[in-house]
Amino acid sequence: MYRQLNPPQRILMGPGPSEAHPRVYAALAAPIVGHLDPEFLAVMKETQDLLRYVFRTKNPVTLSVPGTGGAGMETCLTNLLEPGDKAVVCIHGFFGMRMREIVERCGATPIAVEAPWGRPIDPADVERAVKGSGAKLVAIVHAETSTGVLQPLDDICRVAKAHGALVVLDTVTSLGGCEVRVDEWGIDAAYSGTQKCLGGPPGLSPVTFNDRAMEVAQKRRTKVRSWYLDMTLIAQYWGESHVYHHTAPVPLNYALREALLLVQEEGLEGRIARHKKNHLALVAGLEAMGLEMFVEKAHRLPSLNTVKVPDGVDEAKARRRLLDRFSLEVGAGLGPLKGKIWRIGLMGYASSARNVTTCLAAFEDALRAQGHRVPEGAGVKAALELL
Amino acid sequence: MYRQLNPPQRILMGPGPSEAHPRVYAALAAPIVGHLDPEFLAVMKETQDLLRYVFRTKNPVTLSVPGTGGAGMETCLTNLLEPGDKAVVCIHGFFGMRMREIVERCGATPIAVEAPWGRPIDPADVERAVKGSGAKLVAIVHAETSTGVLQPLDDICRVAKAHGALVVLDTVTSLGGCEVRVDEWGIDAAYSGTQKCLGGPPGLSPVTFNDRAMEVAQKRRTKVRSWYLDMTLIAQYWGESHVYHHTAPVPLNYALREALLLVQEEGLEGRIARHKKNHLALVAGLEAMGLEMFVEKAHRLPSLNTVKVPDGVDEAKARRRLLDRFSLEVGAGLGPLKGKIWRIGLMGYASSARNVTTCLAAFEDALRAQGHRVPEGAGVKAALELL
Repeated sequence: MYRQLNPPQRILMGPGPSEAHPRVYAALAAPIVGHLDPEFLAVMKETQDLLRYVFRTKNPVTLSVPGTGGAGMETCLTNLLEPGDKAVVCIHGFFGMRMREIVERCGATPIAVEAPWGRPIDPADVERAVKGSGAKLVAIVHAETSTGVLQPLDDICRVAKAHGALVVLDTVTSLGGCEVRVDEWGIDAAYSGTQKCLGGPPGLSPVTFNDRAMEVAQKRRTKVRSWYLDMTLIAQYWGESHVYHHTAPVPLNYALREALLLVQEEGLEGRIARHKKNHLALVAGLEAMGLEMFVEKAHRLPSLNTVKVPDGVDEAKARRRLLDRFSLEVGAGLGPLKGKIWRIGLMGYASSARNVTTCLAAFEDALRAQGHRVPEGAGVKAALELL
Repeated sequence: MYRQLNPPQRILMGPGPSEAHPRVYAALAAPIVGHLDPEFLAVMKETQDLLRYVFRTKNPVTLSVPGTGGAGMETCLTNLLEPGDKAVVCIHGFFGMRMREIVERCGATPIAVEAPWGRPIDPADVERAVKGSGAKLVAIVHAETSTGVLQPLDDICRVAKAHGALVVLDTVTSLGGCEVRVDEWGIDAAYSGTQKCLGGPPGLSPVTFNDRAMEVAQKRRTKVRSWYLDMTLIAQYWGESHVYHHTAPVPLNYALREALLLVQEEGLEGRIARHKKNHLALVAGLEAMGLEMFVEKAHRLPSLNTVKVPDGVDEAKARRRLLDRFSLEVGAGLGPLKGKIWRIGLMGYASSARNVTTCLAAFEDALRAQGHRVPEGAGVKAALELL
C-alpha cells in the first residue's frame, strides 16, 4: 500500500535546508540513548562549547532549542518581552515581518523601522525610532533569507545600547557562513537554524543569551507565554542540574554536534572565506550570462544569492526544469518578490565549486529552454576564473 | 580535541525515548530534500494518513508539530484557550501538573481535579468540577508516564460532552501501544510523542484536532499566544496550499513515517496485544522476584511499568548497575515518587520477549548486588510462562 522511502539525491541550493556532509548523516543514524544518559549529557556539553565557538561568545547560556529557526525567534522575543513593553522591530523582508507578528503575540507594542525589500535598514531610522521611545529591545535580521541582504550591524548595535535597549539578532542564514560576533558586537540574544550555513539537518535552533538578557528573563513580572520555549526552563535542562523539561531530539543533537565539529575543523575564518569565494564566482557567472543581481554589491549575502528573473521567463517553469533535469533545488521569491527573483543558496557543505558550476550550467540550460538568449558557456567560464 | 561520536547501544526501557527499529534508523539517514520538494509533500500526505490510522480518526487536521510531546500539549491548550477561559485539568501525576502550568500561561483559569499519584481520576470528581463551571474544556492524561496509570476515559468524555466542554487528551505514552479511539470516544484534540509506543526518534509531536476544535481555534477573539505553535498556521502548511510556516525537520518526518508504517504492517490490534502480553510477563516476573507493583492491577499501563523500590535498596545505585553491566536504561521516579519507584518502559519496538527477560535477569543481579534477597531465576521463569 505504501512505497518504500527513497528520496532523490538533491543538490540543495534553495533557502534551506542545505546539503549535509556524510558525517552528519552518519551522526543522525547513531544509536539513540536516553536524554539523561551520561553519553548524551557529554554530547550536550560539547555542543554548547562548539556553539560558543561559532557564535563567538562566552555566554554560559548557549544551547539549542527543540524547534526550528522560528522557535528560536519566538524564544528570544517571548522571553524578553512582557505585555506593555515596546520593541523596535527592523523590517526589510519576510522575517522582520514575522518578528513583528511575534512581538504582538507577546502583548508588546512593535515600533517598526522599515526599509524596502532588498535594501538594508538605515541606522539613522533606528535611532529616530528608539530615541526616547522607552523600547526594551531592538530586533533585527542579520541575513534576510527573503531578499539576500546582509545587514551591517555596528551602528545599529551602538544606537540601541546608547538608548538602553537590548539587541536581538536573527543569524539564521549567517551563522557559520558570515562573520557573527555576538560578544564583540554587544548582541544580547541571538538565534539561528541548523540547516543553513551550519550544514546540519533542520529541526533545532541554536540560541545564545548573555547575562543581561538572562537577567531580564529571570526578573519578569509575568510568566513567559510559552512554557515550551521558556528559556529559564530550557537553560536549567542544559545546565548542571539537568532538570527535566523536554525529551531532547537526540538524533538532531548528534547531527548538530557533528556539523559544528566540521565547522571547527575547517575553522570559521576559512569557512567564511569559502562562502565568500563561491558567492563571488556564482555572481560573476550569473552576470556573465546577462542576469542581474537583486541586491547592490555592498550588501549581498554570500550564503543566499538573489537574482532577478529576466523579462519573458517563467520562473516556476525554470525551477521545475532545474529540479527535473539536474535534481537541483533553488528557491522562489517570497511575498512581494514572488515571481520576480530566484534565491540561490550557497550554504555550508553546499557552498562548493561543484555546486557553483552545476548551477550555472543548469541555469543556462533552463533559460535557453524558454528561448531566452544566453552567451554559450559564459557563466561557467566567468566562475572558473574565481574558483 | 573532540572524540568521535560513538554512543553505546542501549536497551531503552525507560520512560522514553524507546528503541527504534533498524528501518527507522535508515529513514533518519535518507537524503534530505527541501521541505517543499514534491517528494517531501508526498511523505507528509502519507504520514497524515498513517497518523489517522493510529489515532483512529477521520480528522482532516492530523499532522505532526515540529517539537516534542510538550509542544503538542502546548499546541492543544494554547490554541483552544483564551484569556478569561476556564479549563478543568485532571491532575494525577507530573504531566497533569504541566497541563495546569500551560493553562495558566494561556491566561485561562484552571479548575483542578486531583487524584493521588498512582490512582486514576474519578469521573464523579470531573462531573462536580465541570458542572455549571462554564469550563471550555476538560484536559486529561491518558497514560501518566510519571505513575504508570492508564486512565479510563469513557465516563469522563461523556461527562465533559454533557456539560458542553471540549476534551483534550494526552496520548504521549499510549498511542501505538494501547487502545486510543479519538473519534469513537469523542476526543476533540489529542497529542502524542514519537519516541514512545510509536517507536520513532524524539522531536515531533503528532496532533489531531476535530472540526469542533478547529472551529474554536479559528474563531478566537485573540491571537494564539505562540506563533510557533499556532495550529491554524501549522494546518495551512500541512494542507493543500502548503503555506510556509516552518522548515520541516525532514529526517524526523522520514523516521516518523517509517515508524508508523511499521505500526500499520503489524496492525494496531496485534501491536496492542503484544504490548499487553509483554507487560503481563514482566509483571509476573517482577512479582515472582518479590517486588511489588506501584499501581493496582486494574489501572496498569502496559507501556510503562512502575515498581516499588524495596526497603534498603538504593534505587539510583541499582539503575547505575543496570546501565553499566547490561547497558539497560530504566527510569527513576519523578517528583514525590523520586527514590520510591522504578519506571520500566515496554514501548514500541522495545516491547519484546528479549527485553522482558533481560530486564528481569538484570534486576535480579542488581538487587543481589545490594544484598537484597531474590529467589534465584524466579523472575525469568515466571515471565517465560506468559511469553
